[in-house]
Amino acid sequence: MATRGAILAAAAEEFAARSYHEASLSRILERSKVTKGALYFHFVSKESIALAVVDEMERLCRGMVERCAALGLDPLRTAAQVAREMQDALAGPEVRAGQRLCGEGLAGPSRPGWPFAFWQEVFTDLFVRAGTAGLLVPAVDARAFARTIVDVSAGAFIASLAISELTDLAQRVCENWELLLGAAADPAWLDAWRADGGMAAVLGPHLGPMPIDGGGWVPER
Amino acid sequence: MATRGAILAAAAEEFAARSYHEASLSRILERSKVTKGALYFHFVSKESIALAVVDEMERLCRGMVERCAALGLDPLRTAAQVAREMQDALAGPEVRAGQRLCGEGLAGPSRPGWPFAFWQEVFTDLFVRAGTAGLLVPAVDARAFARTIVDVSAGAFIASLAISELTDLAQRVCENWELLLGAAADPAWLDAWRADGGMAAVLGPHLGPMPIDGGGWVPER
Repeated sequence: MATRGAILAAAAEEFAARSYHEASLSRILERSKVTKGALYFHFVSKESIALAVVDEMERLCRGMVERCAALGLDPLRTAAQVAREMQDALAGPEVRAGQRLCGEGLAGPSRPGWPFAFWQEVFTDLFVRAGTAGLLVPAVDARAFARTIVDVSAGAFIASLAISELTDLAQRVCENWELLLGAAADPAWLDAWRADGGMAAVLGPHLGPMPIDGGGWVPER
Repeated sequence: MATRGAILAAAAEEFAARSYHEASLSRILERSKVTKGALYFHFVSKESIALAVVDEMERLCRGMVERCAALGLDPLRTAAQVAREMQDALAGPEVRAGQRLCGEGLAGPSRPGWPFAFWQEVFTDLFVRAGTAGLLVPAVDARAFARTIVDVSAGAFIASLAISELTDLAQRVCENWELLLGAAADPAWLDAWRADGGMAAVLGPHLGPMPIDGGGWVPER
């Protein structure tokens, strides 16, 4: 199991740094410091290692959602917390690699539409409950709002990865959520949320406050 | 030139349907009906074909932006028109393949951050002019709003590709723009825009009205 873990840790680093087709088994071997024989004892191919990395991401994402739900926040604050923790997790190689592999079509047949289908379900559930609790503007459809959140979150990751190697991800997540909550959340909820500092004040488990450098804005309403 | 065109057309079909690493030169050969010798006369590798497909996408995107600018619409309507034409173009294999290849990191060294950096510039320019013309809510920062539009557009493409093979892309684009314009556009502009039918009434050059099936919503303000 220690060998398997070392291979997966090295593979996460490799798949986070390079596209699947650029990633190389020999670099994974070198990083993991295991022998070729040991690697082929645990995995039959580069693809089977990639699938195991996505398994690990799935486990981390499900754990993240459960942990946020257990905080006892209202559904909209829970949604923002999930987004913040996901952005935080993308600083580490496991989720970053899994996300990238999924984007390259390597989620495997047991996860159709991953990670989009998973996050669509998570956010639809939260926004339906937010709507029932009167936390959304009545015209907002929970499922459509969840789709927009999934789109903007997926896009923030790939755009930030391509443009800035994820250094501007925190700012993108912050601005996107401020704009979208500003459009969709109930005014009274929004006032309380902003009085607490808004998205920039939502902290992930590992990082301090978001490194917003000016550019951010909070729409008035 | 006809041979090169036949290879590129076949390559666009292949790269639109499969990830780069799954795409095969032999399928491209078969589809293009050219000989292996002819293919290697024009291209040295799968990667060089992929780069030529992205070149073609760049040409199409720049043409699209120029054509939309020439319509003489205000900057916000021009932005919506660009988004609608892009969504329309993604129905064909050329842009779809180029976009997918860029997402897999195959834009080539001459296009850093493509297509995100390109669209960021296009939309920032439009939103700066929209702000100057008083078409945006004063609190909205043009560059930040452009980032959100780039994120949501990129995410809509990859999420729709993964979940529905792009069949729900029109609906996603429509809902995302309605929500985001609802948050960022000046109320008077928004009233006129909605009186004209909003995003669903913006037509691309090839398609009829967007096939929205219920789910859509127009936020009140």
